[in-house]
Amino acid sequence: MLSFVNDYSEGCAPQILEALAAHNLTPEPGYGCDPVCESARAKIREACADDSADVYFLCGGTQTNAVVIDSMLASYEGVVACTTGHVALHEAGAIEASGHKVLTVPGHDGGKMAARDLRALLAAFYADGSHEHMVFPGMAYISQPTEYGTLYTRAELQELRAVCNEYDIPLYVDGARLGYALATPGSDVDLPCLTELADAFYIGGTKVGALFGEAVVFPRHGAPRHFFTQVKSHGALLAKGFVLGLQYDTLFTDDLYLRLGANGVTRAEQLRAALVERGYTFHANSPTNQTFVVLSNERLAELGEHVAYEVWEPVDATHTAIRLCTSWATTQEQVDELISYL
Amino acid sequence: MLSFVNDYSEGCAPQILEALAAHNLTPEPGYGCDPVCESARAKIREACADDSADVYFLCGGTQTNAVVIDSMLASYEGVVACTTGHVALHEAGAIEASGHKVLTVPGHDGGKMAARDLRALLAAFYADGSHEHMVFPGMAYISQPTEYGTLYTRAELQELRAVCNEYDIPLYVDGARLGYALATPGSDVDLPCLTELADAFYIGGTKVGALFGEAVVFPRHGAPRHFFTQVKSHGALLAKGFVLGLQYDTLFTDDLYLRLGANGVTRAEQLRAALVERGYTFHANSPTNQTFVVLSNERLAELGEHVAYEVWEPVDATHTAIRLCTSWATTQEQVDELISYL
Amino acid sequence: MLSFVNDYSEGCAPQILEALAAHNLTPEPGYGCDPVCESARAKIREACADDSADVYFLCGGTQTNAVVIDSMLASYEGVVACTTGHVALHEAGAIEASGHKVLTVPGHDGGKMAARDLRALLAAFYADGSHEHMVFPGMAYISQPTEYGTLYTRAELQELRAVCNEYDIPLYVDGARLGYALATPGSDVDLPCLTELADAFYIGGTKVGALFGEAVVFPRHGAPRHFFTQVKSHGALLAKGFVLGLQYDTLFTDDLYLRLGANGVTRAEQLRAALVERGYTFHANSPTNQTFVVLSNERLAELGEHVAYEVWEPVDATHTAIRLCTSWATTQEQVDELISYL
Amino acid sequence: MLSFVNDYSEGCAPQILEALAAHNLTPEPGYGCDPVCESARAKIREACADDSADVYFLCGGTQTNAVVIDSMLASYEGVVACTTGHVALHEAGAIEASGHKVLTVPGHDGGKMAARDLRALLAAFYADGSHEHMVFPGMAYISQPTEYGTLYTRAELQELRAVCNEYDIPLYVDGARLGYALATPGSDVDLPCLTELADAFYIGGTKVGALFGEAVVFPRHGAPRHFFTQVKSHGALLAKGFVLGLQYDTLFTDDLYLRLGANGVTRAEQLRAALVERGYTFHANSPTNQTFVVLSNERLAELGEHVAYEVWEPVDATHTAIRLCTSWATTQEQVDELISYL
Repeated sequence: MLSFVNDYSEGCAPQILEALAAHNLTPEPGYGCDPVCESARAKIREACADDSADVYFLCGGTQTNAVVIDSMLASYEGVVACTTGHVALHEAGAIEASGHKVLTVPGHDGGKMAARDLRALLAAFYADGSHEHMVFPGMAYISQPTEYGTLYTRAELQELRAVCNEYDIPLYVDGARLGYALATPGSDVDLPCLTELADAFYIGGTKVGALFGEAVVFPRHGAPRHFFTQVKSHGALLAKGFVLGLQYDTLFTDDLYLRLGANGVTRAEQLRAALVERGYTFHANSPTNQTFVVLSNERLAELGEHVAYEVWEPVDATHTAIRLCTSWATTQEQVDELISYL
Repeated sequence: MLSFVNDYSEGCAPQILEALAAHNLTPEPGYGCDPVCESARAKIREACADDSADVYFLCGGTQTNAVVIDSMLASYEGVVACTTGHVALHEAGAIEASGHKVLTVPGHDGGKMAARDLRALLAAFYADGSHEHMVFPGMAYISQPTEYGTLYTRAELQELRAVCNEYDIPLYVDGARLGYALATPGSDVDLPCLTELADAFYIGGTKVGALFGEAVVFPRHGAPRHFFTQVKSHGALLAKGFVLGLQYDTLFTDDLYLRLGANGVTRAEQLRAALVERGYTFHANSPTNQTFVVLSNERLAELGEHVAYEVWEPVDATHTAIRLCTSWATTQEQVDELISYL
Repeated sequence: MLSFVNDYSEGCAPQILEALAAHNLTPEPGYGCDPVCESARAKIREACADDSADVYFLCGGTQTNAVVIDSMLASYEGVVACTTGHVALHEAGAIEASGHKVLTVPGHDGGKMAARDLRALLAAFYADGSHEHMVFPGMAYISQPTEYGTLYTRAELQELRAVCNEYDIPLYVDGARLGYALATPGSDVDLPCLTELADAFYIGGTKVGALFGEAVVFPRHGAPRHFFTQVKSHGALLAKGFVLGLQYDTLFTDDLYLRLGANGVTRAEQLRAALVERGYTFHANSPTNQTFVVLSNERLAELGEHVAYEVWEPVDATHTAIRLCTSWATTQEQVDELISYL
Repeated sequence: MLSFVNDYSEGCAPQILEALAAHNLTPEPGYGCDPVCESARAKIREACADDSADVYFLCGGTQTNAVVIDSMLASYEGVVACTTGHVALHEAGAIEASGHKVLTVPGHDGGKMAARDLRALLAAFYADGSHEHMVFPGMAYISQPTEYGTLYTRAELQELRAVCNEYDIPLYVDGARLGYALATPGSDVDLPCLTELADAFYIGGTKVGALFGEAVVFPRHGAPRHFFTQVKSHGALLAKGFVLGLQYDTLFTDDLYLRLGANGVTRAEQLRAALVERGYTFHANSPTNQTFVVLSNERLAELGEHVAYEVWEPVDATHTAIRLCTSWATTQEQVDELISYL
């Protein structure tokens, strides 16, 4: 059966397997203090156009969010996210487990935070005579692409940045699927742009061709003090850090990361073209690798005989929104077959 | 240069690389809910001789300790460990970060907890009229092998178990290097023995041939309630759980895990035979893959030209204890070369 | 200047001062293990009609909420509250500081939780295929009276109780101002009713005539295991517990607690009668000691010359809602004077 | 029966009761933002000879330690204390509950931290190649007087201060019984000395004549950022802050705090003179209000018929160390009667 359930169903780009095999018996120092990680960091710094960026490798998305947010917030601060933000909904309280509240604003255009909403929350907070009895909004958290696959434009990020500057809080970008955002035709947000506008972001590996792993970037020597130890105390320090370094070194060689992202986006575009042609309604206007489409429950049952997908939410009594996820691994044959069932 | 620094310097057993390659493009469900993980679990259950054991896969040792200990303790309880225990010293406060104190007893014979010390601590606690103002000792934590490479005998574990039963607290065994313990000639503690005597333990992969990963075993359906969610809220849930499952499925096929352990121990025995022959003094009597030996600082400098090792601690003004670590990856040639420098 | 800012502006009922003076040099054991606390507990049990109720004394409301909620939830659970609930808004993240998310539902009729909303949240949670990646709703938190001074009826509490039973979660009632609720004419929720329907609640002292202090009641021997130690580990255990016991012993002698509550409610009724007469609009329909009324900003400025009040929120460009709070300490003269300014 | 169990058995100095009564119906703003607290702060600043000291009032000792330590440490730091330190032993893990490890050094001369031990711990930490995997020692915690009633001299505090300066960590002094230290003849550590040498300390009220309450002093505008909110998020903010302010305003009027302390010390000196005369052995050489003396178990039983005391620890099979505690409240008659039983 075809699987379009998500973008973390397969292993990794073959180049990574090759690199792991080639390097397998070369001994390396532990905990990411090795030349392989250094090489990967250098390549990421170059891609970000920031020689001074601090780069760390972690294992997964929720872990990365929990460590980065906890290390950038004071104990009395919370993080502002959209109600549909991953940290707000689907991390089993990992942010709260390290003592921080997730403060929410409504999402727009598929889970995007509006600068006006962020400013309104911050303004209302400081205008409230009781605000010292409340959780301080200490950081803005957004995802690029969002949980609905939509993208911020450079202008939108600049507006959010302006609000963050106004209130002196950092902007953090969850890039679990960043490769797909970077590879989307027409997007004007590249790595140097993110590096310029964010105080921290991560370049997701798990969903974009790595076996596992996320690369956290703190532009302008911006890593929190003793971040290494904070990673360790969160249980997030990998002994064989070079396994992460090796993957990122490979992903940032010959533009592999972008090429993997482009595959996911191209396959999704093919899928969406077919859906448009056949008159389907979209549940969100994602230009990236996730496609949200509404089907009658009848059609859904038929489709389910051939294709695995993720049920997103019921739309009405007889229709359901589902997510069809392409990825770095999706082949032309698989998309063609999927289209044949629609 | 030769490296005997530690047992997590190389990648993984070639069989694991092969399995990863073979399975690479087969889509699997996320988060460990896949047939590969199920197969690995079944093999582990069989090796443990407990059909009812709950088995989970995590990424690293500190993470595993933090998640398991936090999920098994009440908020007012701490964990009892030796002063040299990994959780007491080298986890950057990961146990305290989830709110639990590490209560310590002195180690014996290379970091082993004596049942009499554990009983004394528990008895003194309950005899203290102020004990309700103190942290309740809620679990015993030991390592097999210990941080000094020494081993508990079955009889010693039974004694600890008896104390735990007396005070109704669980016994948890950190098996970061368990493969080397299981493969040590003369040890009477095998997996079924651990399964019988412990309430939780983990079968370390990172240091015994896996790329990364640890398998937590809760015998007799003993997993803490909603352990899956607790793993997630600790940021410890891997999206591609099947990458862990695949490794353990391979490690538990054709006794690979034991064979990898045996390699590390055999190489260490060869090394220790040479050290004995040449009259060196040992710093701890480890029968497993770690060798602790005392060298004059002069000899140390010479050795350092050819071999990377870990400085353990100064012994006196002119001598230092070092650790020489063999592993699943150490070859006969490497040990022979090391011996030639001694 | 008159003060109607809040109900914790004055010291305490004179009877409490007398009791403190009379008892002042009698030595008592520490930490609430004294005959005075025992006497207070016995009186509270009697008032609750539950011989088996566990009763503890704490210092303040936020502290009590933090300790009770943390001790009743598993680490992977959050507490469900109204968006206007005190724990959701005005406790500076004290609930999150002990690791728990506050999950919210909209409030109705002045911040009341509807049983249907609670059921919907719980049903949606368990229906969500991803719920194991989310915070488990582990408790319902409500306030009687609410933050807007409104009251649950017995029937409404029974409905909430039914939902809690359905999903096997406890119901916890924040009674910071409980005395005013109990003394409100027409309310059918008395202490035995709360005792029957809640798993935990507290009888607020700070705002109802005590110098400070809250009495937590866990009906039916329901105190969390080692609650005493959990109080201590939250920094909430008072050395001179008898100072709290003495206050509650006094408050539960000759119905003082109810009489103090009645004073606050009667004064508020007089105020509201005057407001109605003069055609003011209410911002919430509180029958208890808090009165929420809308004033033109002009009127507000005039009033502010004579009376201190709390600005609640702007209503429109030219009107503002304020809170006028009466209490156990408000005199007839004070209310009459206030009315003369309206 | 006589009680020499502890120094928190009675209510408070009569002057405090009078102040509470006199002020009882004067409305005050909440949360310590009132003129009474301001007056108390001004008097404390004057007594400390530091116009720029930040002063906050909290409810109890464990609470104060937990809030101050958590707010002064980074998340990856722990606090260094003596093994007998209150935070290490008798606070039910309140420090760990906010995520921080208590690192210990042995105590000397009745639980005093030696500057050489502190320096050794810090030097060893930074010399350890693995120290980034360990908890950073981020603060020194001492008690004046110690848990055994002994006192640091000015010279000893200067030495500790020098080590703290060397490693750039703050020095925090737990002054739960500070009044007795300040009133001890011959002690050269007064409030200005503490203010000069410590980064934070508290002036204990609960054990020195207040009903409850501790005054935290951060010299030189040294309060942690948003300390008010941090107090609140720990559940430690008292609504009626003026009740604490009023007590400290009274304690710091006409040297009451010192006079109360002097009473406890003088009574203890009388007791110790009698014990010396009768040939008893002391268990610790406390010059303050706590007296630790060794009795045969036989004598102990006899004494117990007339006097309540605290068993400290068994000394040998037939002898036990007990604590006899005098206080601000102990009368000449009570000491004379106690002496008559010895």
